[in-house]
Amino acid sequence: MTAAARARRRRDPEDLEIVAFERGPYTSYSACGIPYYLGGLVADLDALVARSPEQHCENGIDVRTGAEVVALDLDRRVLELADGATEPFDRLVVATGARAVAPPIPGAQATEPARTLDAAERLSRQVERGGHDAVVVGAGYIGLEMAEALARRDLHVALVDQAAEVFPVLDADMGAHVREAAEAIGIEVHTSTGVEEVLLDDDGRPRGVRTSGGELPARHVVMATGVHPDVELAEQAGLETGPTGALAVDDHQRAHGGDGVWAAGDCVESHHRILGRPVNVQLGTHANKQGRIAGHNAAGGDLAFPGVIGTAISRLCRREVALTGLTETQASEAGFDACAATVETSARAGYYPGNGPVWVKLVAERGTGRVLGAQIVGAETAAKRIDTVAMAVWTGIAVDELQWVDLGYAPPVSGVLDPVLVAARVVAKRL
Amino acid sequence: MTAAARARRRRDPEDLEIVAFERGPYTSYSACGIPYYLGGLVADLDALVARSPEQHCENGIDVRTGAEVVALDLDRRVLELADGATEPFDRLVVATGARAVAPPIPGAQATEPARTLDAAERLSRQVERGGHDAVVVGAGYIGLEMAEALARRDLHVALVDQAAEVFPVLDADMGAHVREAAEAIGIEVHTSTGVEEVLLDDDGRPRGVRTSGGELPARHVVMATGVHPDVELAEQAGLETGPTGALAVDDHQRAHGGDGVWAAGDCVESHHRILGRPVNVQLGTHANKQGRIAGHNAAGGDLAFPGVIGTAISRLCRREVALTGLTETQASEAGFDACAATVETSARAGYYPGNGPVWVKLVAERGTGRVLGAQIVGAETAAKRIDTVAMAVWTGIAVDELQWVDLGYAPPVSGVLDPVLVAARVVAKRL
Repeated sequence: MTAAARARRRRDPEDLEIVAFERGPYTSYSACGIPYYLGGLVADLDALVARSPEQHCENGIDVRTGAEVVALDLDRRVLELADGATEPFDRLVVATGARAVAPPIPGAQATEPARTLDAAERLSRQVERGGHDAVVVGAGYIGLEMAEALARRDLHVALVDQAAEVFPVLDADMGAHVREAAEAIGIEVHTSTGVEEVLLDDDGRPRGVRTSGGELPARHVVMATGVHPDVELAEQAGLETGPTGALAVDDHQRAHGGDGVWAAGDCVESHHRILGRPVNVQLGTHANKQGRIAGHNAAGGDLAFPGVIGTAISRLCRREVALTGLTETQASEAGFDACAATVETSARAGYYPGNGPVWVKLVAERGTGRVLGAQIVGAETAAKRIDTVAMAVWTGIAVDELQWVDLGYAPPVSGVLDPVLVAARVVAKRL
Repeated sequence: MTAAARARRRRDPEDLEIVAFERGPYTSYSACGIPYYLGGLVADLDALVARSPEQHCENGIDVRTGAEVVALDLDRRVLELADGATEPFDRLVVATGARAVAPPIPGAQATEPARTLDAAERLSRQVERGGHDAVVVGAGYIGLEMAEALARRDLHVALVDQAAEVFPVLDADMGAHVREAAEAIGIEVHTSTGVEEVLLDDDGRPRGVRTSGGELPARHVVMATGVHPDVELAEQAGLETGPTGALAVDDHQRAHGGDGVWAAGDCVESHHRILGRPVNVQLGTHANKQGRIAGHNAAGGDLAFPGVIGTAISRLCRREVALTGLTETQASEAGFDACAATVETSARAGYYPGNGPVWVKLVAERGTGRVLGAQIVGAETAAKRIDTVAMAVWTGIAVDELQWVDLGYAPPVSGVLDPVLVAARVVAKRL
């Protein structure tokens, strides 16, 4: 819908007709907000909707909800809907997103991924109907956010992951701070634990989860085991996927394998500026920027997407977690000669009320000193400091320079030396 | 004391004797914390002391408090104390700071600048003794913070400044948001108003302030009309001041006009990287970095200070305020062909509890598109976003690139597009 809205702003309705097909009932909603709805922080599901189909229609976009596109013919320039109807097009934007993939185990079909608003509503009603025990499978940020949401609903929550530490995209030493925070709000964490079966009762409803470490009772089972780009439709139409399995696009969001086709969001590959290769990242920030570019270019414009560096933030169990660039593990795997250091400082001046710890792990390249990435875990306000490092990674400055940058200080928002500067100083010394 | 501590870490006591002279009773305290002590947010004045004289002594620094240096002889390498004693030295670090300057009006001698811990204690006791009315003269960030602190103590506070808007270092359109916040907590704001006399009762205590707009009752009068670098001692010893009136130093913090002398903090000039000329800024961040460099170099090291770009943050009356680089006014005055835009966005996702507005005014140079500076006013968590712009100003990237940078997003900490990115987009379009 970002692409549609952008194209609409660029071209008048008399000049360009825009039709948007959506198989579900909602448009332009914040999937990131679903855990807050489930956890009761956001009372009304409608609050997550940024723009309704009606609002888009008023803006001159012919939105058709409940309309599933089942085939694309790029030669004849026509698409086919599930009800057999067809629609011609000159230019096409593919934004089919990603779909949750449950692990191939018995009983998985009876679980909820809670990736869409309608699924979130179903899960919320199910929780209301009772059952004290929940199991969340997958301890990435979605799994952690869902576990916290269910704990806020006063359920007993077990969080299971086959990885050795929660939030496995972080280095394990930083993930340990997140585990501690999850356990502090009563979440039972089972790492290095495989899930073998969702146990169902006679009605087909979950009653437990069998894991490599034994059985866990569970009336509610949430699968947060990751998503795959939803590229089936595009692939059948002859569009190409890249090494990640997502749609290959150029920097103008033009899809490979078809003329006059753009693609954006969770279903496409993005260029990773530090790794120098395509990645598939499902984040609203990239989807928003790419959607804008796809819509702009589909309407005759010329904008390029400069790529991603892996920045992400989550608030988890009273801690904020953030990362950008490469972790120490990723940097080593990618062949960088990396040097890392972790500092523990504070979010505010020591004497200021509401102060709490901030851990910053900063990774730089030996030789050049270039900042490769950082991970931050800490008290409220800790996370957005990642943007400072994101700017450092993006512009390629070295830790030796970063440690002196004129960042902001006031007792309510920082120590006199920002945690990022302290980390840069330690890494610079180590280099 | 940062210089002393740094030199101590670099050289052993057998190798280098370090003596520190302080005329007051305290060392290493946070002057920035004084308003929070006065306002009752910080209960204990000792909490503002980062390191006591005793702790410094334990670390091998011979700290002498209550010891005022009254003369420096750089040729004979000896200093003289107020009590007539002398002390020889080989190398000298001057860190005499700044002193508050009251306006030259009758009665000013009966007011408090509350710039030091002992002055803060006196003012706090005076408030306890009663008197409902307070006047704060000067609506810069210190004046605003002091006004807020006194309002928190349930006083009626009038804030007076001759400038047309509060926080006059901001562009007036951004200062207006700060005024609104001050008025919302009951502070009576008198701008474009000159102060002519502090009216005293027969005991010599303030009873009011006569201004160009009439008389204001006031049992408590706080002067926040700015500070001057405290360079008298250094000047008498032959050290040179620059165009700002502060001590001139090179990038190694070496003082001009004397060999083997370094200087750091509020009493020195700093190189402004965007203006390309020296400025005198009184901020703990610079003092800390420069002190480290002065101590390091005085102990035989080789570190350079890369300069400042004018970053500052304050939390004022339930709003956070931040700036970096140049304002639109400063940019014009400095001869830049500047283009600015202000956006109003939000600190968190629209549906997330605790959301509030964020105004970002971004200034860029026409032609190059280079980011020259920004001002941010907004709800809690707004201010530290200034660091993103500080990195942009420091590294010299253009708004056209800034708008695409991979910054962090999560509903509790940002909208899907960070306010800085939104501002960059608008300025880029305007350019």
